[in-house]
Amino acid sequence: MQIAIPLYDGFTALDAVGPYEILARLPGAEVVFAATRPGPVRTELGSLALTADRPLSEVTAPDILLVPGGPGTVEALADQALLDWLRTAAAATTWTASVCSGSLLLAAAGLLNGRRATSHWIALDHLAGMGAIPSNERVVFDGKYATAAGVSAGIDLALHLAGRIAGDEIAQAIQLVVEYDPQPPYDAGSISTAPAELVTSLRASGLVVQ
Amino acid sequence: MQIAIPLYDGFTALDAVGPYEILARLPGAEVVFAATRPGPVRTELGSLALTADRPLSEVTAPDILLVPGGPGTVEALADQALLDWLRTAAAATTWTASVCSGSLLLAAAGLLNGRRATSHWIALDHLAGMGAIPSNERVVFDGKYATAAGVSAGIDLALHLAGRIAGDEIAQAIQLVVEYDPQPPYDAGSISTAPAELVTSLRASGLVVQ
Repeated sequence: MQIAIPLYDGFTALDAVGPYEILARLPGAEVVFAATRPGPVRTELGSLALTADRPLSEVTAPDILLVPGGPGTVEALADQALLDWLRTAAAATTWTASVCSGSLLLAAAGLLNGRRATSHWIALDHLAGMGAIPSNERVVFDGKYATAAGVSAGIDLALHLAGRIAGDEIAQAIQLVVEYDPQPPYDAGSISTAPAELVTSLRASGLVVQ
Repeated sequence: MQIAIPLYDGFTALDAVGPYEILARLPGAEVVFAATRPGPVRTELGSLALTADRPLSEVTAPDILLVPGGPGTVEALADQALLDWLRTAAAATTWTASVCSGSLLLAAAGLLNGRRATSHWIALDHLAGMGAIPSNERVVFDGKYATAAGVSAGIDLALHLAGRIAGDEIAQAIQLVVEYDPQPPYDAGSISTAPAELVTSLRASGLVVQ
């Protein structure tokens, strides 16, 4: 079971690594990090690079495709070769998934037309203009397409996927191995629970995650 | 504010990347991934490498030290140069933190003597034999030392740290940016909530996280 995670400049590290830590533990999983050019790919914050081991051109028929988001999405949306690759790869998959603004890339590739999908809260409105039906749920399944909200939501998405792929017992075992028993010290992780003025100021700050 | 994250072969990706995604967003944060030899460092699962941009020898006085865990800890515990570096670096810090079995490395360096600390549930008992006082809490603070339980607990630890370093408002803003509003589909993330037979079978499987 090949799991392809494409990287591009300015992706968000946790978008990729959260689901990776879950999905790579599935029985028979073979994860491939890939990019247009193999080698280190810098994340949005510049201080971390993940290695893409293979060129995209060598990864054409994954069983699972997981697309991370991040501010780099803005440039990636104009990368026709990447969008072509997404279309080709998605045609082969059992599951095609995204985290955060990765859903905008799937939408730009025409893969979410008429499908319910989610994204980072600050990017969610863009989905409607790209043919998808935006949902503010944390994890959205529509057919073989699974999309997650911002950044950390990829962990929840991956556990859902793990259950569907390998069954609840294995998914629970993976959850216990990564000790995913979240206890955030604040309840500010969604726009429905965070202080309203915080949401307003972040929207006004020009925070770019798409 | 320099934040040093040392990498070593066989570390667990999310141990490092979870806290990174939080701490790197603090005002004035400069994150440095470092290793004995700079370059790509493979995680425990083999299918991912993170780039260490600097040699440990060039990062000697970080403000914050964050040590990831993983199965590679077993070999790292015998790496005297790494333990020496941990002692040197920790002498300079405002905060010294670990995720998962990273606390065993801090303990082996003599930094947790008589201190309360936590670790991955399967490694927790080892801490007592290394001079620390094990606690099964998810995040434990004792003086300037902060330790987290397994893998995903590093995200919670980092939000606690963010609040102490920069205040609750900034920590909450970061939580909202990474949309950390966890909604795991199962309640199997700790040994107190997971099915008992699952805990037993994982213990018996020889799962190595220390």
